[in-house]
Amino acid sequence: MECAGRRPKHRWRLKVRAIDAAQPFDDETKLLSTLERRKTLTIGVIGFGNFGQFLTKRFVQRGHSVIATSRGDYSQVAMKMGIKFFQDADDFCEEHPDIVIVCTSILSTESTLRSFPLQRLKRNTLFCDVLSVKQFPKQLFIQLLPDNFDILCLHPMFGPDSGKDSWRELPLVFDKVRVGNDAHRNERCTSFLEIFEAEGCRMVEMSCEEHDRQAASSQFITHTVGRMLGTMELAETTISTKGFESLRCLVDNTYNDSFELYYGLFMYNKNATAELSRLEFAFAKVKSELFDRLHERIRDDIFDE
Amino acid sequence: MECAGRRPKHRWRLKVRAIDAAQPFDDETKLLSTLERRKTLTIGVIGFGNFGQFLTKRFVQRGHSVIATSRGDYSQVAMKMGIKFFQDADDFCEEHPDIVIVCTSILSTESTLRSFPLQRLKRNTLFCDVLSVKQFPKQLFIQLLPDNFDILCLHPMFGPDSGKDSWRELPLVFDKVRVGNDAHRNERCTSFLEIFEAEGCRMVEMSCEEHDRQAASSQFITHTVGRMLGTMELAETTISTKGFESLRCLVDNTYNDSFELYYGLFMYNKNATAELSRLEFAFAKVKSELFDRLHERIRDDIFDE
Repeated sequence: MECAGRRPKHRWRLKVRAIDAAQPFDDETKLLSTLERRKTLTIGVIGFGNFGQFLTKRFVQRGHSVIATSRGDYSQVAMKMGIKFFQDADDFCEEHPDIVIVCTSILSTESTLRSFPLQRLKRNTLFCDVLSVKQFPKQLFIQLLPDNFDILCLHPMFGPDSGKDSWRELPLVFDKVRVGNDAHRNERCTSFLEIFEAEGCRMVEMSCEEHDRQAASSQFITHTVGRMLGTMELAETTISTKGFESLRCLVDNTYNDSFELYYGLFMYNKNATAELSRLEFAFAKVKSELFDRLHERIRDDIFDE
Repeated sequence: MECAGRRPKHRWRLKVRAIDAAQPFDDETKLLSTLERRKTLTIGVIGFGNFGQFLTKRFVQRGHSVIATSRGDYSQVAMKMGIKFFQDADDFCEEHPDIVIVCTSILSTESTLRSFPLQRLKRNTLFCDVLSVKQFPKQLFIQLLPDNFDILCLHPMFGPDSGKDSWRELPLVFDKVRVGNDAHRNERCTSFLEIFEAEGCRMVEMSCEEHDRQAASSQFITHTVGRMLGTMELAETTISTKGFESLRCLVDNTYNDSFELYYGLFMYNKNATAELSRLEFAFAKVKSELFDRLHERIRDDIFDE
């Protein structure tokens, strides 16, 4: 009998079962193993540069088992992080990670994937990317990956600098491009996203196409302005306003990124050219406002109107 | 006898005089009146718009006596602030303020000054400006003001927004362009600057010429970028990075300023054209880096190199 009125509320969190019914003998073991499965994922990282290592650290801290492979030899770095590194991609695949996360640069993703022994991964694999453009890897994955792979496209909008101490409130954009209907596949995808959720990320579910539209007018423009001002070599002044300081800060945060990344944001986002043109048009407009006014004044002097 | 070891330290702030020497009978009164003179200045504000009102509030809070004049009728605002407003510039001048501070816009300063009854001010007047360009008012003042006026050029690098709550750590640039040698003139200039010092401003003594060099590459460029992005009408996105947020912040802080101010920063700072060209050149360079690379890739495809 249930006596809701008498039981303290917090007791209700447990699922009540009729205790006089017979339980399967291994009920507890089964539940535990499900819990265990939910908790620890084997995550395979392809591309163990700055960003791959940055993510791996958190995955490991959260108790997941991580393996990595990369063009370069990162076995020393991996050992220090307590994870296995495979120079050989075949060896990496034969470990059958539950989730594979591609952490290569935008420019090298396609060639890496085309030469990767995908057939050695188990058929039931969740494949992810973390590129700053999204439509491109989505299409690439759909084209190159076996049909039975799940696909989850991610863009953690932070990196080793901005997410150094905490990921709290930092946006993670995700698009469940293709996740199979069965419970396990759904659960695995959820468990993986929960890592970011648990770190405090602001979870933003958005189509890859919409991401690229928004990113062209925000991230790409931000990088363009940063590179412009970086190219100008703005010197620090003793009379900097707050606005100027924030621009110098922007230069530090973008101009130090590789040109490869910037070029990737441009080349692999089809909305970028239009945004660049809009910026150019705006610059021309501001300039013409200044010069028209100047011209007007000189004309007035010449013609003494 | 001085017994430094015994006296508590704070007692030493008082100047010790030999108490057995005869004091002039009005010693105390004289000291008090000096103190009084140092403390309260009569400050005349020309141009009682946003910025003039913003400064006046602090001057009044610090116990100074302020009078104001302006093209428009601000008598109601002035009354609320407890100061006298003169619609008539002659009446304003006949009040003989110790200090006159010009708070007009860059564009209207020259015409205001040329029609102002400067001859009605007392010969011993300290004349100041607070424009965002400095060489222009300096030359204008030297050309138009009577030789016996002192000239102090100021640029408070903050305004009603950034300096709303506190002026702490906000830069005040000043150039003592012409301050007479006698003690009173020096003291008056110092007392006036002390208002800003007491409010916590970072005091930056700098020639008007150097100010304009630095401001063109910082403040003018900041405003140009702000207006560019403002013209572009950057929309807020759900996936804004910190860098993008700081750009949107910049737009809020610059694009809302009048075009007049921006045009003033350009027109009345002879270093601005060169800085605008540098920015344009940098933009062209960034763009060509992108397009050269794109072209290279297409060429490779065409010629199959």
